[in-house]
Amino acid sequence: MANGNGSFKSKPTSDTKGKTITCKAAVAYGPGEPLVVEEIIVHPPKKMEVRIKIIYTSICHTDISAWRGENEAQRAYPRILGHEACGIVESVGEGVREVKEGDIVVPIFNGECGECRSCKCEKSNMCERNGVNPMKKVMEGDGTTRFSTLQGKPIFHFLNTSTFSEYTVVDSPCLVNFLHPQLSLSLKHLTLLSCGVSTGVGAAWNTANVHSGSSVAVFGLGAVGLAVAEGARARGASKIIGVDINPDKFIKAQAMGVTDFINPKDEEKPVYEIIKNMTDGGVDYSFECTGNVDVLRDAFLSAHLGWGLTVVLGIHASPRLLPIHPMELFDGRNIVGSVFGGFKGKSQLPHFAKQCGHGVVKLDNFITHELPLEEINKAFDLLIAGKSLRCLLHF
Amino acid sequence: MANGNGSFKSKPTSDTKGKTITCKAAVAYGPGEPLVVEEIIVHPPKKMEVRIKIIYTSICHTDISAWRGENEAQRAYPRILGHEACGIVESVGEGVREVKEGDIVVPIFNGECGECRSCKCEKSNMCERNGVNPMKKVMEGDGTTRFSTLQGKPIFHFLNTSTFSEYTVVDSPCLVNFLHPQLSLSLKHLTLLSCGVSTGVGAAWNTANVHSGSSVAVFGLGAVGLAVAEGARARGASKIIGVDINPDKFIKAQAMGVTDFINPKDEEKPVYEIIKNMTDGGVDYSFECTGNVDVLRDAFLSAHLGWGLTVVLGIHASPRLLPIHPMELFDGRNIVGSVFGGFKGKSQLPHFAKQCGHGVVKLDNFITHELPLEEINKAFDLLIAGKSLRCLLHF
Ligand SMILES: NC(=O)c1ccc[n+]([C@@H]2O[C@H](COP(=O)([O-])OP(=O)(O)OC[C@H]3O[C@@H](n4cnc5c(N)ncnc54)[C@H](O)[C@@H]3O)[C@@H](O)[C@H]2O)c1
Ligand SMILES: NC(=O)c1ccc[n+]([C@@H]2O[C@H](COP(=O)([O-])OP(=O)(O)OC[C@H]3O[C@@H](n4cnc5c(N)ncnc54)[C@H](O)[C@@H]3O)[C@@H](O)[C@H]2O)c1
Ligand SMILES: [Zn+2]
Ligand SMILES: [Zn+2]
Ligand SMILES: [Zn+2]
Ligand SMILES: [Zn+2]
Repeated sequence: MANGNGSFKSKPTSDTKGKTITCKAAVAYGPGEPLVVEEIIVHPPKKMEVRIKIIYTSICHTDISAWRGENEAQRAYPRILGHEACGIVESVGEGVREVKEGDIVVPIFNGECGECRSCKCEKSNMCERNGVNPMKKVMEGDGTTRFSTLQGKPIFHFLNTSTFSEYTVVDSPCLVNFLHPQLSLSLKHLTLLSCGVSTGVGAAWNTANVHSGSSVAVFGLGAVGLAVAEGARARGASKIIGVDINPDKFIKAQAMGVTDFINPKDEEKPVYEIIKNMTDGGVDYSFECTGNVDVLRDAFLSAHLGWGLTVVLGIHASPRLLPIHPMELFDGRNIVGSVFGGFKGKSQLPHFAKQCGHGVVKLDNFITHELPLEEINKAFDLLIAGKSLRCLLHF
Repeated sequence: MANGNGSFKSKPTSDTKGKTITCKAAVAYGPGEPLVVEEIIVHPPKKMEVRIKIIYTSICHTDISAWRGENEAQRAYPRILGHEACGIVESVGEGVREVKEGDIVVPIFNGECGECRSCKCEKSNMCERNGVNPMKKVMEGDGTTRFSTLQGKPIFHFLNTSTFSEYTVVDSPCLVNFLHPQLSLSLKHLTLLSCGVSTGVGAAWNTANVHSGSSVAVFGLGAVGLAVAEGARARGASKIIGVDINPDKFIKAQAMGVTDFINPKDEEKPVYEIIKNMTDGGVDYSFECTGNVDVLRDAFLSAHLGWGLTVVLGIHASPRLLPIHPMELFDGRNIVGSVFGGFKGKSQLPHFAKQCGHGVVKLDNFITHELPLEEINKAFDLLIAGKSLRCLLHF
């Protein structure tokens, strides 16, 4: 199979093709309840679907929000969470041409059909057919699931991907094929491109288009925020201010482009005041990577009047609306959201992987832990406690 | 003096220079109380200030909001409102070089000092020193007023301009000099460039950068909204949907670029649903020109997922925050505010006037009424009733 350095040796045997597979998965049975690692059944891929053997998966804060059921309308159990991974195609359903058994692929939660109005518009990566949809819990094609318990009860899908399983089934627009020249990256590194790192770097490059010499503030120094910092550094930003309530993050952050730190807990003044003072009126770009709406307001006010841009990356589960008055838009500050860093996954991730391979973005620092799938609940704890950036799970 | 067609004949005598002038003005004494047209005293301009004899002034909805005192924190009485005008320099204060007695000028409520960080940044027209500031009620230089009652009581300024007076004093960054080649436009037409038409056309050109073949929705068909439509038409937009609760606006609007109309009062479905159906998913650009926060949400949802841009032009006096959830930004819709259409007044209005002179934007339709200053309360009523677009007042 594939080793940790990414060299992929033997072709998987396809004697499972067309059959159900019984394998291990971590199943969520209720909000905040420990995941249960157990055997489940994975059905064969149907038309335009692909079954993938997952080699590595990691945990993103979005999995934690979903696991907690923070947004009640999006709850569904039993369910297989997980959306950051790397794997090998086990078999393909009818009509799939672009990948074949044995190809190395990265599942993408924000798919790209290539044919809808959004996919054809260069400004948008929000595919109308296969884009991210947190309400979706079944396959696009026939509205059923490809997972079931050994007793035959359907298990729901998550974010087009469901990667906390040895095998998963995704719609073919929801994967990127990496068999070809990009493999200067290891499978571990490719896993990071599946969500967190692409999201952060892409937000700096595609959504904000950070320019050299500019000033940047990053709120929340998890993998996503630190990837923003890496992306901003790669673009030549001269000041990158990191804001986090966890001072442990600052050590790691220093190695990843962050030049200045603010811990809101150590300050009496509002964070945006401090940033304004540090930057002659505010940063050119601020990034909210916490999912906290008060932090979002701080990020907004930290941006320079007249042109400052705030990019929202955090997943906001609270029903609270944007804490911004319409007249505050007249100050010339802009605010936009960024999903998957604005990358069109299928068409742009291969080039991004090549850039990472060339060292434009350093990936090693993002992997802080590695555990077997069986210890997934421990991996969740590490992320919640702010001890890990990305913990890789292997099978 | 100057006649209605804009040819300017005799140089004004400067025997008033350095002296106070007693002249007519419309003074606001309390929220919603009829303006009092009476004699007031206008003091000479101080350092870097200019005293202007107003030839025409007109009424914008922003005057109505201020007159009503909709935003309590911004109230100040007695006060001279008005910010859309055209006039002739009567005399200049110490240090003023760029205009001289007799020059034809347009006061601008959003000044341009030319030296602050915003003025030097091409992305912003929000001058840090002389930009619009609804809280300001005295002169920048010494914090006092240049107006007083005959009894010597100070009368407050408004929006850097206070044009409902035969003479006014403005900071020199708050006017544009039009003596030179641009005078293919009449003084009446120049008056329109002082706020409403520049704001609307500029929002389409500078803020949104409307592209040819695009679809546009304009909410509120006053002078500002219709100027957006004119601007969008000039850019070659192929569909311009006008939305207004006053059906009388639709006749005028047809002559000004609007191709389709929606009266929300005639519809059962939400307006954004209708617009989505009319435009294969939403418009490329929507403009909110009403100052109503519910309309703002309709405008936001009318924009196409993935790239649609909403431009807020309305003045929102209500304390209600943006009725948008942070996650709605993930749909790839953008929202920005636009002040004075994004124009840097001093440096860009002369070119805009030239374009108007060449017929790129048709100005005649915006002038629906003309009255003497004495009838200003009638002119207010016409705008409030939705009967006028711009009513010119002369002295
Ligand atoms: N937009 C997208 O496409 C996308 C993709 C991936 C993740 N996300 C979201 O991005 C966010 C970050 O994800 P992550 O995996 O890096 O999470 P993480 O938990 O590793 O990092 C979050 C960081 O924010 C810090 N933080 C929390 N509250 C704070 C506060 N009040 N002030 C300052 N800092 C605070 C935490 O200490 C932590 O370091 C999450 O909301 C996640 O759901 C969005
Ligand atoms: N941003 C700026 O720099 C700037 C400059 C000038 C004016 N403004 C603001 O722009 C707005 C428009 O100014 P104007 O002078 O054209 O005003 P106006 O009163 O002439 O026009 C407003 C129009 O909106 C319509 N309207 C009101 N409520 C509506 C609703 N619920 N749905 C649909 N239509 C509705 C009215 O019928 C009217 O036709 C005002 O809020 C004004 O203060 C802003
Ligand atoms: Zn993620
Ligand atoms: Zn698509
Ligand atoms: Zn105005
Ligand atoms: Zn300035």
